[in-house]
Amino acid sequence: MTGTTLAHLNSCSKADFVAALANIFEYSPWIAAEVAERRPFFGVSEMFEAMRLVVAVASADQRLALIKAHPDLADKTQRGDQLTAESNAEQNSVGLDRLSDAEYEAFDRANTAYRKKFGFPYIVCVRRHTKDSILRDFEKRLPNDKKTEIAVSIGEICRIAALRTDLLVKGDNPLKVHGRLSTHVLDTHGGRPAEGVEVELVELSALGASRVIARTVTNHDGRTDVPLIGGRPVPIGRYELTFKVGGYFASRKVAMSDPPFLDEIPLRFSVFEPEGHLHVPLLVTPWSYGTYREARCLPSPEGEGR
Amino acid sequence: MTGTTLAHLNSCSKADFVAALANIFEYSPWIAAEVAERRPFFGVSEMFEAMRLVVAVASADQRLALIKAHPDLADKTQRGDQLTAESNAEQNSVGLDRLSDAEYEAFDRANTAYRKKFGFPYIVCVRRHTKDSILRDFEKRLPNDKKTEIAVSIGEICRIAALRTDLLVKGDNPLKVHGRLSTHVLDTHGGRPAEGVEVELVELSALGASRVIARTVTNHDGRTDVPLIGGRPVPIGRYELTFKVGGYFASRKVAMSDPPFLDEIPLRFSVFEPEGHLHVPLLVTPWSYGTYREARCLPSPEGEGR
Amino acid sequence: MTGTTLAHLNSCSKADFVAALANIFEYSPWIAAEVAERRPFFGVSEMFEAMRLVVAVASADQRLALIKAHPDLADKTQRGDQLTAESNAEQNSVGLDRLSDAEYEAFDRANTAYRKKFGFPYIVCVRRHTKDSILRDFEKRLPNDKKTEIAVSIGEICRIAALRTDLLVKGDNPLKVHGRLSTHVLDTHGGRPAEGVEVELVELSALGASRVIARTVTNHDGRTDVPLIGGRPVPIGRYELTFKVGGYFASRKVAMSDPPFLDEIPLRFSVFEPEGHLHVPLLVTPWSYGTYREARCLPSPEGEGR
Amino acid sequence: MTGTTLAHLNSCSKADFVAALANIFEYSPWIAAEVAERRPFFGVSEMFEAMRLVVAVASADQRLALIKAHPDLADKTQRGDQLTAESNAEQNSVGLDRLSDAEYEAFDRANTAYRKKFGFPYIVCVRRHTKDSILRDFEKRLPNDKKTEIAVSIGEICRIAALRTDLLVKGDNPLKVHGRLSTHVLDTHGGRPAEGVEVELVELSALGASRVIARTVTNHDGRTDVPLIGGRPVPIGRYELTFKVGGYFASRKVAMSDPPFLDEIPLRFSVFEPEGHLHVPLLVTPWSYGTYREARCLPSPEGEGR
Repeated sequence: MTGTTLAHLNSCSKADFVAALANIFEYSPWIAAEVAERRPFFGVSEMFEAMRLVVAVASADQRLALIKAHPDLADKTQRGDQLTAESNAEQNSVGLDRLSDAEYEAFDRANTAYRKKFGFPYIVCVRRHTKDSILRDFEKRLPNDKKTEIAVSIGEICRIAALRTDLLVKGDNPLKVHGRLSTHVLDTHGGRPAEGVEVELVELSALGASRVIARTVTNHDGRTDVPLIGGRPVPIGRYELTFKVGGYFASRKVAMSDPPFLDEIPLRFSVFEPEGHLHVPLLVTPWSYGTYREARCLPSPEGEGR
Repeated sequence: MTGTTLAHLNSCSKADFVAALANIFEYSPWIAAEVAERRPFFGVSEMFEAMRLVVAVASADQRLALIKAHPDLADKTQRGDQLTAESNAEQNSVGLDRLSDAEYEAFDRANTAYRKKFGFPYIVCVRRHTKDSILRDFEKRLPNDKKTEIAVSIGEICRIAALRTDLLVKGDNPLKVHGRLSTHVLDTHGGRPAEGVEVELVELSALGASRVIARTVTNHDGRTDVPLIGGRPVPIGRYELTFKVGGYFASRKVAMSDPPFLDEIPLRFSVFEPEGHLHVPLLVTPWSYGTYREARCLPSPEGEGR
Repeated sequence: MTGTTLAHLNSCSKADFVAALANIFEYSPWIAAEVAERRPFFGVSEMFEAMRLVVAVASADQRLALIKAHPDLADKTQRGDQLTAESNAEQNSVGLDRLSDAEYEAFDRANTAYRKKFGFPYIVCVRRHTKDSILRDFEKRLPNDKKTEIAVSIGEICRIAALRTDLLVKGDNPLKVHGRLSTHVLDTHGGRPAEGVEVELVELSALGASRVIARTVTNHDGRTDVPLIGGRPVPIGRYELTFKVGGYFASRKVAMSDPPFLDEIPLRFSVFEPEGHLHVPLLVTPWSYGTYREARCLPSPEGEGR
Repeated sequence: MTGTTLAHLNSCSKADFVAALANIFEYSPWIAAEVAERRPFFGVSEMFEAMRLVVAVASADQRLALIKAHPDLADKTQRGDQLTAESNAEQNSVGLDRLSDAEYEAFDRANTAYRKKFGFPYIVCVRRHTKDSILRDFEKRLPNDKKTEIAVSIGEICRIAALRTDLLVKGDNPLKVHGRLSTHVLDTHGGRPAEGVEVELVELSALGASRVIARTVTNHDGRTDVPLIGGRPVPIGRYELTFKVGGYFASRKVAMSDPPFLDEIPLRFSVFEPEGHLHVPLLVTPWSYGTYREARCLPSPEGEGR
């Protein structure tokens, strides 16, 4: 699927419309087909809601078929063959194509147990997750009964579809599927934003290797020029955000101990709202620091009252 | 002076231009007259800079005359008579028309001492001050020599003129003469912005009565809908910002002691950069709180990186 | 009553024992008389518990008589005449002898309403209270039924008796009737205890004048040499603790704004556990501060683990 | 050397005195011999100061001989053979007997370079250090000239001797050679000390493996029953102190996100005053935390003012 616009989708032939949206729901062009007659859509969100409604009122058989149209997660035998390009890209985004042996084994065991119990593949919207949180999700869902799991799976399929729609279609009233992770370093020793602090964000992993997500430096406002994570869901998982404050204070000629009491400050926290704006500031002197979760609204254009 | 636009000033007759700007510098239309030929001005800032330059290169006699064109601060005998409307409004903004007897006496003593020493009136940009900070300014400036005071007075006159220009003329590239005082209440007990906290800002006074500047309630984002002070300089002075957190936590059914350990939290601080954006957040639980000065940049339209 | 020792009370005649403890319970020597035969007591607490038990198992008539033996709170007509010396000292300790007219009226109204409803005087252990908290206590107790108020009054009488016992009798196993209010100033700008900070504790009052309870200066450990309140219950009420940090940082030659952003920092909080150890530290830089309630255990002699 | 008392040392024969203190200064019984006549000593500190003075006024040759009496640090060939039992125990305390190959190589390189430049072994009081800080010390001292290094070495020898004296001799006026590292967890969500928080202290290492120094659980006072490090110098080095707050808040039934925003909180800091009392508290809610360095005085027996 290459990018398109709502304006084009609103005006093209039904066949083109269905072709363009065929894999919004995995291997299930019939969903797009059902909403084609309702065009034009006022916005991307309205178009997506129409498709979601089709799924919501589909028969039990249709819903099960939709579920079964999905691949097994991280099933190596399906790589490059039976996966849609969309599935492939999604699974790679979370690192499912770079599993360690221990991780592959854990995923395989979970997959097999799940399929054996329910008769259909385990589905999760991987762009909202890390490898660790997927394994936790497996554990939480495996004890469910089949009816619950069908409902949960349809929910995940809709999340996947929403993200695919957002990637594919530009237009008015976009879907709210992006989150943001940001930080801000306040030098409460000097009473100013801390400029020039090296910041590193690492995704922690219980089973495999942790990996660096972002490396950057704070600007004159004590913030990073771009969010640490933005323009996409912030994957559920555990993170460590490290601030090199020793170098910062040294560069400002602040009197410090040798070695400095505080050098690299790690903040370790979990993300649980992938579509939220999580702001994790650091207030710091050479001898103290503090942090807190700030669940922020997206800034209004005028920025009044702040 | 009624409001006008840069476009009009750029295109009107020289006489109209000079008339419109006659009192930007108190009783000194010659300054506007000198820059009339340089029209059109690209922006309001450019127009003002041209006038400032006229003052900067004026002769010593002209500068002294400009200073002497100003009224005595808070001189009751001049009220309503010799003051320009601009001077009158400015002096009232800071409460100079509502002085207590003790305050009047303090101002009068300072004014008299100043005029006696220097032979010209004490001038200060009152919109950048509180009554208390003006009296402190008197004390700091009185020991100066005459040359220094002429320079300081010209500087204050230019600050007054900049604010008058900003009030009078709308147009591109406006002058940066506004500051902002804002707050933000974070409920670190619940991990969310604190909505519905009553906030009161009081200007403290050493001599006279303190006065309430703003009373408001935090919104869903833990902020106030409009800045506590905005759209003008934040007057230099001492303030107390009080947050009624007892009622807030009670309304959220948070378990508390009786009486609540924390009920009304006062933050007492001074403003020293009238044109800056001073942000004073409160992080609070029923058992702890903290605050810090955040000197913020004005938000960019996109709000990226936050 | 002048001070005595448990050793003496354990060995003196019954008549002397009863005489010594006659007013532990107001005008009710029969309570001491009932426990005289159980001597010797192992400790002061054991002696007091024996008397408390006498009260607990007394008949309804005896309990009512005990209640009625008490004076009206703040009843001016009783001053110096019918009050025991103990009652007089207690009532003065909370300032009931220095009521403003508005306060006297409020107390009188409450007293009259209480006596009218219940037929006996309002009793409260005033050493555990401030004037404000007594008025709040009135309001909370007035809606009670008579049975509840008899129980509450007996409870307060026992608290009064415990404090009188503690004042009167020295000996092993003393009563735990003292609380403590302490502070600690940490300079997180310099990473050290803040020495030389002026500290003032004020008891706030809604009706009358606030009054200064303690004025002191922090020592080399950032603490005060003696607790702000100690060796007695910490009265329930609202307090403001003010720290002159502007002078402190100026004396350390720390770069600050003019005027300093933070100069006098007020912490406003309520006490609700008169017998507890409430520790209210201040963590401070010239640009930020924080505080929290620390309900502390009394230090162990060895002080290990701290 | 087995433990002895100052009383014994003050009263025994000179031969016994010298024998007992023979290795306070490595292989240098002459130092003890010189002070034997000055007995009795009022306290352990006085006895040690007398020996230190002997070293201070010793001839250049004597001082060099004293330095050369020391073994190479971490020289495997000397293990068990030429080392005094004291040296052996000291070197093992810091893990010099469990060096990784990379570490051994780094030490060996440094040792060789040092001996080659100065002609005597590198000496440092290892009980005040971690492996990492010893390697940093090497780097800082290698550029020194010989005269400086002789002075530095003598200083380190005296520190070693003080610790040996403290271990060996009990008596009045002990040497102040112990530091302390302690913590305290305050639950500012509940307004109480956090009891039952698992705490782990790890010594970080740049070259080799980090190692766990202490694992404990906070008591009802939010402290640990014994200091994390106490009764000895706190080795200069980098540490990570981790608090399992997720489990703590879960056990208190506090509403949290899934996964909890904060689970394991790491504080990473350096020690630079081995004989000081470093207190590193944690103030924590499920959504925020803060820490600061509190350089504390040892508690006074009465504990007043806290």
